[in-house]
Amino acid sequence: MAKKPKLLSELFHDTLKDVYFAENRILKTLPKMAKAAHSKDLKAAFVKHEKETRGQVKRLEQVFKIFGKKPQAKKCEAIMGITKEGAEIMTDYKGMPALDAGLAAAAQAVEHYEIARYGALIAWAKMLGRGDCASVLQQNLDEEKLTNDKLNTLALRNVNKKAA
Amino acid sequence: MAKKPKLLSELFHDTLKDVYFAENRILKTLPKMAKAAHSKDLKAAFVKHEKETRGQVKRLEQVFKIFGKKPQAKKCEAIMGITKEGAEIMTDYKGMPALDAGLAAAAQAVEHYEIARYGALIAWAKMLGRGDCASVLQQNLDEEKLTNDKLNTLALRNVNKKAA
Repeated sequence: MAKKPKLLSELFHDTLKDVYFAENRILKTLPKMAKAAHSKDLKAAFVKHEKETRGQVKRLEQVFKIFGKKPQAKKCEAIMGITKEGAEIMTDYKGMPALDAGLAAAAQAVEHYEIARYGALIAWAKMLGRGDCASVLQQNLDEEKLTNDKLNTLALRNVNKKAA
Repeated sequence: MAKKPKLLSELFHDTLKDVYFAENRILKTLPKMAKAAHSKDLKAAFVKHEKETRGQVKRLEQVFKIFGKKPQAKKCEAIMGITKEGAEIMTDYKGMPALDAGLAAAAQAVEHYEIARYGALIAWAKMLGRGDCASVLQQNLDEEKLTNDKLNTLALRNVNKKAA
């Protein structure tokens, strides 16, 4: 029997599972990063983003639903690697002046991964005529971009200076 | 004996090794992606970026040199995960209509990781008074951003439509 051709709708669904896994993984990582961070501002940014991420997970569940599928996670090797690198920073730089600069950069790597993924998902949803899915995903993308900008401002204003 | 405090200069050096590993890894992945891609335009984009990446590796070697260090790679878990995900696309979507859309998105995830990393390295170099390192790294960042934009245009114009 010939394999069923994998179309954009399958790619969209597979990638949705991948991002669902990633957001849930990040949810577990953020409290550790908040605990590890030295600066109050950076701690607060991680705590705030944890709360936001809970909302993003809910939005993804909503997208699964309107796409007619059950929420399901698929192991995302990329986020496993990116968060592993963040964990290395927490170990290697524990108690060190450059810890926060490393943590902020690790978090920005996470944000950039998500920005790439949501960008692709939104483009595919539109191509599939699923503006309803695209508009929910757009809310997650907007939040990730804002978080990345905030981390950038924090890093440039305080975190990097303390490490220098 | 107390541990030597890890300052921003160590973080900069460690992250430079990480990106050096990442660019070399990408150099091995791009020919596979070019071979796998269906669309001529996407193939050409991967071939072009392979050539660019060779230049970026040389620039990183230049940064090591002006920073007074030998070029050295440190295993980057993030890029291992991101490229593993790209390899999964090549396997799971082999011969499928959505292959190119998945490949273009996987390449954009790589670009976004590099954009995050170069952004941090440039900020740290400036903070360390190393404008000489920052300006070389900026050239790599500019190229990664352009590549990401090109992939975006390609994906929106052709690749996603063919997959739908």
